[in-house]
Amino acid sequence: MPAATLTWLDGEATQVLPLPDRGLAFGDGLFETLLLCAGQPLYLDEHLQRLWRGLDALSLPDCLQAARAQVESAAAEISAQGWQWCALRLTVTRGGGPRGYTPPPAQAPRLLLQAARLSADHGSLPAPATLGEVDIRLAAQPALAGIKHLNRLEQVLAARQAAQLGVDEALLLDSRGELASVIAGNLFLRRGDQLLTPRLEDCGVAGTRRALVMGRWAAAAGLGVREARLTPQDLEAADEAFYSNSLQGLRPLAGFRGRRWREHEACAALFAQYRGELP
Amino acid sequence: MPAATLTWLDGEATQVLPLPDRGLAFGDGLFETLLLCAGQPLYLDEHLQRLWRGLDALSLPDCLQAARAQVESAAAEISAQGWQWCALRLTVTRGGGPRGYTPPPAQAPRLLLQAARLSADHGSLPAPATLGEVDIRLAAQPALAGIKHLNRLEQVLAARQAAQLGVDEALLLDSRGELASVIAGNLFLRRGDQLLTPRLEDCGVAGTRRALVMGRWAAAAGLGVREARLTPQDLEAADEAFYSNSLQGLRPLAGFRGRRWREHEACAALFAQYRGELP
Repeated sequence: MPAATLTWLDGEATQVLPLPDRGLAFGDGLFETLLLCAGQPLYLDEHLQRLWRGLDALSLPDCLQAARAQVESAAAEISAQGWQWCALRLTVTRGGGPRGYTPPPAQAPRLLLQAARLSADHGSLPAPATLGEVDIRLAAQPALAGIKHLNRLEQVLAARQAAQLGVDEALLLDSRGELASVIAGNLFLRRGDQLLTPRLEDCGVAGTRRALVMGRWAAAAGLGVREARLTPQDLEAADEAFYSNSLQGLRPLAGFRGRRWREHEACAALFAQYRGELP
Repeated sequence: MPAATLTWLDGEATQVLPLPDRGLAFGDGLFETLLLCAGQPLYLDEHLQRLWRGLDALSLPDCLQAARAQVESAAAEISAQGWQWCALRLTVTRGGGPRGYTPPPAQAPRLLLQAARLSADHGSLPAPATLGEVDIRLAAQPALAGIKHLNRLEQVLAARQAAQLGVDEALLLDSRGELASVIAGNLFLRRGDQLLTPRLEDCGVAGTRRALVMGRWAAAAGLGVREARLTPQDLEAADEAFYSNSLQGLRPLAGFRGRRWREHEACAALFAQYRGELP
């Protein structure tokens, strides 16, 4: 059976990371999770735009050109493997340096690419996800909100609890107890023909698919969309709810607390827009 | 010139980390920074106690026995190098696993040890540190407060700004704008014969030397000590201020805003207690 993963560091196939590395030492870096369909990375420009915002927030050197070239080169190798669907994680770390928190004056970021073959069909609307509630809330940190950095212990602890609960996903609240996101995606709820999604000033990740819903797919599906401050009660009272992420696109939520949603019309309409853009 | 660093992974000398690793992917792990004096790790029990609290908070398997054995083995090799002072960083990661935030059911933590020779004399009271102010505040996250986990972007961003300001250290405020710590140490201020140090329920690291000041050295130096909620104004009005960490022990602060401290009597008295315990 052929290997189901491939790894490259700075363009070279490898299985290891040189030490020291500030990505490991402090989570000093960023990542993107790309979906590849038939060897083609989806929405690469959108991913690189968010990466650019992260590089800026962390004062990392601009390595977008190298990132693009290495993703495209990896995609060609993945295509040659014949994998229909593949998750490609791009990790950027601040690289090595002497001990201590202070970034070294001469920074040499490292670009790591990790490809994993996906066995499920990612071109169809996923089955509705069960949604649990976890204890941990997302801390308010405006300096890191929106970007996809490597400090993800909150998500790890939430995912562990969700697995114990036996649910597919979990609602994450912000420090005020308002809706922030799910663990691995952005949350949307529908009221009539309006979509509402949590604001991201203090926490959360500005998802690439969230931006596509807001900028393109909602309008094409005849839906309004806006950011709002939302409570768990708002979610329970919604006509429909779903989340977005790069690997699943859009996934309906089956219910929340006492509420069960049996119709997922907005999510299905947005997914149809998304599917229409697949290669 | 002999190498000034040494690295071991799970007890074997190495220069690389196998991939994937959740420490790199999500900052899913912990660390300790030990000071070695003439090859002897200082306060290893205290470091392992804090590590234990971190393992518990992150639901990582108990690897304390292996950590102790590997630190002691590394210390023997460092001793053979003849390094008088050495920083030994112990990093524990959740190890490898499939992609995604959920920790794998079978967890195999990795123990990484990174030794760096220190050239300065760490047995004398350090010169007073200049203290700057930075924009970033420590987010409130009770689930991670006190433990020394690998999610340290706040400290990295603060350290970068401190370097730009040209100061030795910087004050970190919590999300309410009250005193939390300095970037790489715990903060103390003195009012008369009372030491005050910020509480750590919501953010910050429960330092090993902070615990020694509170549990042993303050009383031995004839000082009272208690935790308190403190403001920048409290710091400016203090009779003296200093910080503690594992590499420097205790270091006086030269001033804050309009205030200059020329006497560092409490810090010097505590340092004398500390020095008396050195091998």
